[in-house]
Amino acid sequence: MKINVVKSVLDASDAMANVNRRRMDAAGLTCINMLSAPGSGKTTLLQKSLPMLPDGMRTAVLVGDLQTTRDAERLENSAAQVVQINTGSGCHLSPSQVEQGLDSLDLSAIDLLIIENVGNMVCPAAFDLGEHRRAVLLSVPEGDDKVAKYPTLFQKADVILLTKIDLAEILEYNFDRVYEDLAKINTAAPVIRLSSKTGEGVEAWRDWITAQRPE
Amino acid sequence: MKINVVKSVLDASDAMANVNRRRMDAAGLTCINMLSAPGSGKTTLLQKSLPMLPDGMRTAVLVGDLQTTRDAERLENSAAQVVQINTGSGCHLSPSQVEQGLDSLDLSAIDLLIIENVGNMVCPAAFDLGEHRRAVLLSVPEGDDKVAKYPTLFQKADVILLTKIDLAEILEYNFDRVYEDLAKINTAAPVIRLSSKTGEGVEAWRDWITAQRPE
Repeated sequence: MKINVVKSVLDASDAMANVNRRRMDAAGLTCINMLSAPGSGKTTLLQKSLPMLPDGMRTAVLVGDLQTTRDAERLENSAAQVVQINTGSGCHLSPSQVEQGLDSLDLSAIDLLIIENVGNMVCPAAFDLGEHRRAVLLSVPEGDDKVAKYPTLFQKADVILLTKIDLAEILEYNFDRVYEDLAKINTAAPVIRLSSKTGEGVEAWRDWITAQRPE
Repeated sequence: MKINVVKSVLDASDAMANVNRRRMDAAGLTCINMLSAPGSGKTTLLQKSLPMLPDGMRTAVLVGDLQTTRDAERLENSAAQVVQINTGSGCHLSPSQVEQGLDSLDLSAIDLLIIENVGNMVCPAAFDLGEHRRAVLLSVPEGDDKVAKYPTLFQKADVILLTKIDLAEILEYNFDRVYEDLAKINTAAPVIRLSSKTGEGVEAWRDWITAQRPE
């Protein structure tokens, strides 16, 4: 009985995600959903990388957080349109929240929509929002054991960003351990090592974004 | 309708938490529930601090993770009894999982039970497991904006541990911002700055644990 309830919620959720995707397809835009633990550097990376996108690539960001508009404020100079979605006590963005976000954007003036999900390695991974691609961040200070501990998140990633690599040496980070764990669950997604602080790898991420076009 | 369903789940959950608490009270042990984002250093701090507890204080740890027994293995030399609970896709420990964990421990041989919750700043905060105290960790690399963004977590804390402070200088961490945000939601919980790497603050945390006795 309980399983049926969960299933029907997910079905409704997936149906709404498909509505969002078709709407974004019709508008000719590409949507990337960014997922990670809190504090892995999603906002900072966007501040750094969005201004590096090719001229004429018009961007917007939907930012999910339980509370505050801090992330949206940080991004207002980096993207043409920014919308903050506060989830209250919600542990992930839902497709219907994204639908409301789309309502408040001028979709005809967007080529790339970034969704910055709530910082959480578990719940957001289970919800398709209607995105075309998923980017998953893992910051070096979180430790080199997280791929094995949160496999669902990494399994569904289209690109994996290892962030804050400037701290790798001081933290004696074991990249091989991460690659070995990834090899068991996701061999398709490219892995980009980057540091928003030094700038290393940010161009590779910019190039990956630019290569994603609506199918 | 939907709200009623959620409510009844929480009521059942709270009832089970009370069962757990009474059972631990009867055994004369103190239970501390540790909550934080993934990679904030819960396991490392326990490895460092549990051996520093007073002689004769018998400890056990229930470790929650979606997958793997890595954290339990890391702790097997630091506590007399260690049990790993794998939640599968579950984003937090539930009181009934803790009840099963209690079944597999010899409660008569424990003075202190630590519950290391699933790494997640959102969902675990909503679930009483039957603990007597809550310890919430926030690591410096996660950023100084997290108290405002995840207020529920910090509101319910009995002690707040700012971890990995050895990285504060390199990351230009703003402690004042954290204290200002905490002043708005929780003025009762002591804040301990610590680093498992340098050892700074670990004794203060040890002393806080030692002072918690069953009421």
